Amino acid sequence: MDLKQGLEKRVDVFNRELEKFLKEGSPKTLYDAARYLPLAGGKRLRPCISMLSCEAVHGDVKKVMPLAVALELIHNFTLVHDDIMDKSKLRRNLPAVHIKFGESTAITAGDLLFAKAFEAMHGVYGNLSVFKDVDFGLVECVREICEGQQLDMEFEKRQNVTEKEYLEMILKKTASLFRFAAEGGAMVGGGTKEEANALKKYGKSLGLAFQIRDDYLDISSDEKILGKDIGNDIRNGKKTLIAVHSLNTAVGDDKKLLDKIFGNKGASEQDIRRVYNLFKEMKSVEYAKNTALRYSKMAKNALGVLDDSQAKEVLMELADYSIKREK
Amino acid sequence: MDLKQGLEKRVDVFNRELEKFLKEGSPKTLYDAARYLPLAGGKRLRPCISMLSCEAVHGDVKKVMPLAVALELIHNFTLVHDDIMDKSKLRRNLPAVHIKFGESTAITAGDLLFAKAFEAMHGVYGNLSVFKDVDFGLVECVREICEGQQLDMEFEKRQNVTEKEYLEMILKKTASLFRFAAEGGAMVGGGTKEEANALKKYGKSLGLAFQIRDDYLDISSDEKILGKDIGNDIRNGKKTLIAVHSLNTAVGDDKKLLDKIFGNKGASEQDIRRVYNLFKEMKSVEYAKNTALRYSKMAKNALGVLDDSQAKEVLMELADYSIKREK
Repeated sequence: MDLKQGLEKRVDVFNRELEKFLKEGSPKTLYDAARYLPLAGGKRLRPCISMLSCEAVHGDVKKVMPLAVALELIHNFTLVHDDIMDKSKLRRNLPAVHIKFGESTAITAGDLLFAKAFEAMHGVYGNLSVFKDVDFGLVECVREICEGQQLDMEFEKRQNVTEKEYLEMILKKTASLFRFAAEGGAMVGGGTKEEANALKKYGKSLGLAFQIRDDYLDISSDEKILGKDIGNDIRNGKKTLIAVHSLNTAVGDDKKLLDKIFGNKGASEQDIRRVYNLFKEMKSVEYAKNTALRYSKMAKNALGVLDDSQAKEVLMELADYSIKREK
Repeated sequence: MDLKQGLEKRVDVFNRELEKFLKEGSPKTLYDAARYLPLAGGKRLRPCISMLSCEAVHGDVKKVMPLAVALELIHNFTLVHDDIMDKSKLRRNLPAVHIKFGESTAITAGDLLFAKAFEAMHGVYGNLSVFKDVDFGLVECVREICEGQQLDMEFEKRQNVTEKEYLEMILKKTASLFRFAAEGGAMVGGGTKEEANALKKYGKSLGLAFQIRDDYLDISSDEKILGKDIGNDIRNGKKTLIAVHSLNTAVGDDKKLLDKIFGNKGASEQDIRRVYNLFKEMKSVEYAKNTALRYSKMAKNALGVLDDSQAKEVLMELADYSIKREK
């Protein structure tokens, strides 16, 4: 099974479903602002994971589409609000929602996407008890995402963040939605408790691997590739695993350099380059890569209990892709 | 039945429930920010309406408490986000959440309150079908509130807002949550379709009366009474019913005065006073009072189909209070 093909056909199905659900509305500006980011594309990883997880437990993929839509809308709502807080100007190579529509409309558009996600959930087929459990699971995810976002912001103001704290933060901010995409997909698909738990572990580990790779790409790639502002993470003192490793390992002049530049909003391009080189010299980049690899392997191991299927194969390949991707 | 007494004992029950639900959490700053406004008090009108509506259809008030908590949290989430957008500095005579905790934490705290509201909903007793209907009703309310907030913001930039447009806006922004507090209370309380519809009409009319009174109080009272910035509504060009009536009625010099001052951020105290006097001279204040009175009467009439009860009596008195209140 080719990963690209395995994802693409599901992305097509998903995109049709999303466009059907996220219709134009009134007031027009609000709906334009709310539709702008989700309909601008994106990898659709969370929806795909929920679809694949549903299929992997022999469930009917049609039943999981409302959850798939809800997951993507929650993801997008958090991006819209995060970009305001982080003062990010670009997202997916386009102006961020608050740049294009203004901050007030962006706050409200994010709120609307949040509401629309739970509106979508009401389309979840099957018995009411499954609906209630899956709906509650998604609510808990949003709570965790808020907690993770707050930790992320607070960490920017602290230099002494431990790896354990960093992992707790990305577990909440990123991995919880991956985890629930997989677990919720299994629940809607009628999987056994054992299968749902296996997919929960898969999603959690995949999310961690994915976020650590994301941190790596953020500091190593240029603006063109990621559609984000280059150097922003270093200037903002963003606590990626790479940064956390360096800050906790550096001594002497290296430590002084980090303390001077890391988190310094006025840092020059050259400063950014020096910090990045230090990250490499201290093997922090390698450390992050190895950690991501470990989580990717854990994700694949978790799938052991599932029957063999095409969907399972795509999930396995997705775990490999999560640590190799270049965007 | 004395209204004050009828509300106070329910507010006490509600406050205990809210404090039990909205516990401290981690990260501490986020939970402090989220708890700050809901635990600072407030009239608790929406929870009380849901409790009274449940009781008025002979339902067990204990069953409606999760919905009561959810309604108050949704109300507070919208206040937190609205205060950011409106750049309001005060709320309930205290610094607004974004003033006390910063804008980023306030955005996330609002999001968390939104999530916590739907977490509270999962405590709704009774059969799953009632839960699903009430949960969906609340989701739709939030969607309407977002739409109403956007209209409110867009109206600030337009001088030609009609009364019909104004009513659509407050129907969404304010009345929808009042409407659903009453309707949802009846649904959870096991009321008949006829009773739920009657309470829906009651809540909607009460919400309209309440908002029109709120507009009136905003422009007539001083900062001390309402805990809001005086004159802000006139400087921001906020489209209250009073303003809409004046703008649509004024001609000649009066119209010129309005066009010059209404929506002028730099308007002086004296300018504000001149506009306020014009509102009175043009009988716009009286017009708004009469409109509120009409909705208050409609609210009371809607209750005709309900059996007599102490709860019904309190709801009737609440409709009177909604147009007489001074804060």
